[in-house]
Parts: sequence; C-alpha cells; structure tokens
Amino acid sequence: MRNISLRVCLIGAGNVATHLGAALRQASCQIVGVYSRTYSHAAQLAQQLACNYPFDVIEQLPVADIYLFAVKDDVLPSLVKLVAQCKESAGALFVHTAGSVPLAVLSEQVGRAAVLYPMQTFSKQRAVSFAHLPLFIEASTTEALAVVRELASSLSDQVTELTSEQRKMLHLAAVFACNFSNHCYALAAELLAKEHINPDCLLSLIDETAQKVHEMPAVSAQTGPAVRWDESVMARHLELLQDNPALQQVYQVLSKSIHQLHHDSIRS
Amino acid sequence: MRNISLRVCLIGAGNVATHLGAALRQASCQIVGVYSRTYSHAAQLAQQLACNYPFDVIEQLPVADIYLFAVKDDVLPSLVKLVAQCKESAGALFVHTAGSVPLAVLSEQVGRAAVLYPMQTFSKQRAVSFAHLPLFIEASTTEALAVVRELASSLSDQVTELTSEQRKMLHLAAVFACNFSNHCYALAAELLAKEHINPDCLLSLIDETAQKVHEMPAVSAQTGPAVRWDESVMARHLELLQDNPALQQVYQVLSKSIHQLHHDSIRS
Repeated sequence: MRNISLRVCLIGAGNVATHLGAALRQASCQIVGVYSRTYSHAAQLAQQLACNYPFDVIEQLPVADIYLFAVKDDVLPSLVKLVAQCKESAGALFVHTAGSVPLAVLSEQVGRAAVLYPMQTFSKQRAVSFAHLPLFIEASTTEALAVVRELASSLSDQVTELTSEQRKMLHLAAVFACNFSNHCYALAAELLAKEHINPDCLLSLIDETAQKVHEMPAVSAQTGPAVRWDESVMARHLELLQDNPALQQVYQVLSKSIHQLHHDSIRS
Repeated sequence: MRNISLRVCLIGAGNVATHLGAALRQASCQIVGVYSRTYSHAAQLAQQLACNYPFDVIEQLPVADIYLFAVKDDVLPSLVKLVAQCKESAGALFVHTAGSVPLAVLSEQVGRAAVLYPMQTFSKQRAVSFAHLPLFIEASTTEALAVVRELASSLSDQVTELTSEQRKMLHLAAVFACNFSNHCYALAAELLAKEHINPDCLLSLIDETAQKVHEMPAVSAQTGPAVRWDESVMARHLELLQDNPALQQVYQVLSKSIHQLHHDSIRS
C-alpha cells in the first residue's frame, strides 16, 4: 500500500461509498465531489469526508481523474451515461464497485473503464479496515488496469484481477457466505427471544464456526443433526417450528442441502 | 473455575465425549472408564485421556460418581436404561449432554439426573477452549443441581441454568447460528470452485460477518440484495444457478426469509 494523489469524484452516498470514500481519503486521494440523487445524503457524506462539494446535479460535477460509482446496480447504467455525456471528454477513468455488474456496463460507454469490487459487508455505523480487505479489479485497457491497480493497492494488500464472469460468481458466493449466514444468526436470535434467552450466548458458537474454516474446509467442519441425518432431532426441531411454516421451510431446505453436499461421503 | 475430583465414566466416544473428556481431565476429574459400542473407539479415546479402561460391555463399567452420556439422541434412552440397571444402586449421578433431549429421559429412570449441554461445534481435529464456553445445566434435585453446577463451573465461567423447554429452543437456535451458517460457507466455497477461485478469499468476509454481531443485532447487520430487495441482482444470481435447482431453492427461500424478517422495517 502506498499513498497516491488522484482526484476522485464519488457517485453514490450509501454504505460502499461511505467506507470506500473514507479509505481513499486516508490513502491521500482527493475527494473532489460527492454526488447523490438525494442532496442531503451527498451533503452528509461530503461533510464526513471533509469535502466541500456535495452535488445532486450531474451537470455540476467537478473535473476528476476518477468517477467512482457506488450505487444500486439498476441505476448504474443510466448514471454512467449521464456522467459520460458531461465528463468523458476530459478522459477520466470510470470505475464501478459492483460485484454482479460486468465491466461492459462502463466500457460500452467510455474508453477508460475499470471495476474495483471490495468484498466486504459494510454498515455505516461500523468501521472496517481496508488494509487486508480483498479487492477485485478489472479494466478495459492495460493503462486503465494499471491505474485501478494503483488505486486498489493504495487501500489494501489483497488485490486480485478477475474477469466479469468470475466476479459475478464471487459476488454470489459472498451472498451465501455473508448475507445468508448472517440471516441464520438473525433467525437464531429470533428463536431465543421466544424463550427470553439473551442472544449474546450465541457469540462464542458463531465465532468458533467462523474460526474453524480458517483451518479446514467448511464442508469438513460441518456438525449437527443434518450432516448426521439424525431424523429424531430434526423431527423435534420441525415440531418446535410448527407455528412458523416459513421457518420450517428454511430448516428443511437447508438440512436437505447439507445432506446433499455430504451425500457422497455418507454413501462411501 | 476450580479443580474438583469426581470419578467420571464417559458413555460415548464421539466429538462431544472427546472434547468434554479432555476438558474434565484438565479440571482434575478422574476419567474412570470410556464406553463405546465400538470397542476401538472406546480404546482410542481412553488412550487420549490417559485412562486404561475402555469398555464395550455395559455390565463391566466401573463404579463412578458420574455417568456422563455423550451419544446420539436416539440411542440415549436405551443406554440410560442399561447403565441404570447395572449402576444406579451405587447412587451415581447420571448426566446427559444433548441439546434437544429433555431431562426426563434420565429422571424417569434414575433419581439423580442432570444435563450439561455445551453449546459449541466440536470436530475431533480441532482443539476448543472451554474456559468461556457457554454451558447450560438442569437437574432433577437441588443436590444434583449443585453437583452438575460444580462440574460445569470447573470447566467454564459461563454456566447457565435452563429448563428442558428452553434448552430445546437453544439447540434449535444453535443449528441456525452454526450448522446452517457453516453450510452457507460450504456452498460459497463450492461456487468459487467452479471459477477456480481460492475459497480463502472469503475468510475476511466471514470474519467480519461474525464480528459485526458482537456490536449490533444480526437483523440490523444485514446487507446484500435480499434486504434491499434488489430484484435485478437476485435475478442474475438465480440465472447463475440455473444448472442447480436445489441451490436456486436455497437462494430463494433464504432471500424470501430475509425479506420477511425485514418486512416491517421496509414497510415503515
């Protein structure tokens, strides 16, 4: 990681823009403007980043070396088009941060295009260190790749080049590893609430589950009734969920999926 | 935690018996025998615990202060009955370690009965510290409760008394928080394998997901397409899974469940 001094204009003011903006500022980038369709969001993030230039009008965006898009996937194409109409003449690099959007969404509209996808779960209220955070990059030209690599390397020592196809699968995997596992924590806490048990008692189990996969593949780390196919325990669990058919379905689908993944080893 | 000197006979030689046996030995309990229906398993665990008494015949079990059952739920009732026929006359305490089995399975057969449920995921090949591990206890008499509390407190500073009903729900919650979240890691690794991406790149995401819930409720920590109900991203993900209907079902059921849990906050 090393300091660089690129002028970055942030398009978006959500979780990713907030965390990435702060990390870029720390890496000595200049944040020359923050855009959001909602002016108050742009103003709030600009203030956090000690930048005096919040915008809600594309035409007013300042000149920058990099326009960094961190917005919802479905508004990305139209925003890129608008920014390109106003700003591409200056030869800026357009970068998006989305896991599941191909580079083509940019490169079909501008000559210098790149992706910088930070694989992390960001909430505004929680600080995240970028130092070892996996960043995945891709670019439309060798020169653009060099710039985005420099940008990414100023943030983290874990920078990997991936194709759009690979990144799409990585993003899907991240949904399983993060969003779905976190939802399992949330459902567990809900169940405990019914019996007035403090959900904090789950923390050492959650930690050990996460730590285990540093040492062995998750498939080998699996324990519990589904991998043993302990039907009496599973039947008792389903009975406990009898007033909640949706949760019964989650239980059954995941147990079946565990069984399926271990099918060969069970048979052998 | 303090050292005690009770004579414990282990019934079972699986993951829980292995880890609990080692922890009890460290806490200065005497492991006076190890029973398994498969003699080689009893012999292996006895050797690990520096105990010279492996058994595969109930009638030969030695006299002990505590018979500690760590076996599959469905063999527990018949094993308890057999051990009780041979050994209850000596007034030993019978303890089981199962999350989803009520105390009654013991207390219907013996006078002094208790439960010691360690809420953790145990694999034989990974060491686990008991010092702060949540242990949940229950007993048939005040005296039995005092003994099992002493036993539990010799292992961990996190000892909580719960009823069988509460423990049943806790065990179900543990399946969600541990087995199901670990399975999500395993599915993520499977997806990455298709694109020849090293699954270790998921570790910082997995760690951050687990760490976040130390600071905020899991339901508030949720990120990703399902909580935003970003249909274009979800459609692309389902398309990526088109050759795997079972995984599509997992994706859909969990996304729907995330949406359901956030339904009220989305509406408000």
